[in-house]
Amino acid sequence: MRADAKKNYDQILGVARDLLATGGADASLRDVARTAGVGLGTMYRHFRTREALLEALLRTSFDRLGIRAGELERTGSSDAALVAWLREVIALAHRYSGAIRSMVAAIEDEDSALHASCVAMKDAGTRLLLRAQAEGTVRSDLDGADLFALVGALAWVTDQPVLTQRSDHIFMIITDAILAKP
Amino acid sequence: MRADAKKNYDQILGVARDLLATGGADASLRDVARTAGVGLGTMYRHFRTREALLEALLRTSFDRLGIRAGELERTGSSDAALVAWLREVIALAHRYSGAIRSMVAAIEDEDSALHASCVAMKDAGTRLLLRAQAEGTVRSDLDGADLFALVGALAWVTDQPVLTQRSDHIFMIITDAILAKP
Repeated sequence: MRADAKKNYDQILGVARDLLATGGADASLRDVARTAGVGLGTMYRHFRTREALLEALLRTSFDRLGIRAGELERTGSSDAALVAWLREVIALAHRYSGAIRSMVAAIEDEDSALHASCVAMKDAGTRLLLRAQAEGTVRSDLDGADLFALVGALAWVTDQPVLTQRSDHIFMIITDAILAKP
Repeated sequence: MRADAKKNYDQILGVARDLLATGGADASLRDVARTAGVGLGTMYRHFRTREALLEALLRTSFDRLGIRAGELERTGSSDAALVAWLREVIALAHRYSGAIRSMVAAIEDEDSALHASCVAMKDAGTRLLLRAQAEGTVRSDLDGADLFALVGALAWVTDQPVLTQRSDHIFMIITDAILAKP
């Protein structure tokens, strides 16, 4: 992608992310283009449909979470790193309702455009888990699939309007559950 | 309801329950009537739609779980009683995909035909929780809403085909989380 095209692409994604985060999930491609200050032609060259735009948003979010896991892997405390990363994954679920459902589906579906990003993110999260287990700070009977089942369970709670108030508390209870007892 | 009508009603519900449990979620009212050995007229007198039949099934299931909680309240071990009851709730989620979603919605919706059953079941489950907390066998920072958030989270795991294999393990991890550490 040429530098100016890349700039437009990033600008569109940034605007779409902000719109979603502020409750504008129904924004049209036209709304996004206007707010991003790009023409509709440019918009459609990058994203033909709202679904394509949402997919790109999710893909960049999953990629970021993969990179973030790598950064956290190099920090001091293995259990704190894992919990901090889980908190960022759940924050994504909070921003985009359905993000975790997409993730679970994409991990299984090799033809999904999100497959590679989700697998890389899952692998990065699993490395955080394994490091914490090697140091004895997380219970040893969990594997990567269990970790993502718990992430999905937490995301479900986050997605229920009536449970929103307690979702931080539930997060704490479930992370307590994965931490090894001294 | 007259005794023979009650007999037909119970017979229809029993057949519908078995059909659902054996993967016959798409069975028509006609299929259910035939298997139950009742005429279509009788069927329609009791249940006008599949939805009405499913609702009656869920209502009787929630009622049973409420009664079951009351029985377990009188047994010896408060933490074992709570875990046993949670296991029965999740077994319902396993039999009827979406049962817990219906429950969460019905608790909030006073106009729902399932509201009274779900509130009674929630209250009965909360009494099991409170008894265990009074005896110090369950962590003290949970309330009834948290308990049902965790039930919903577990039901979500149970509902994911790719996670089915690990759902017993996840159940164990989450029940570990609610039990007080000595």
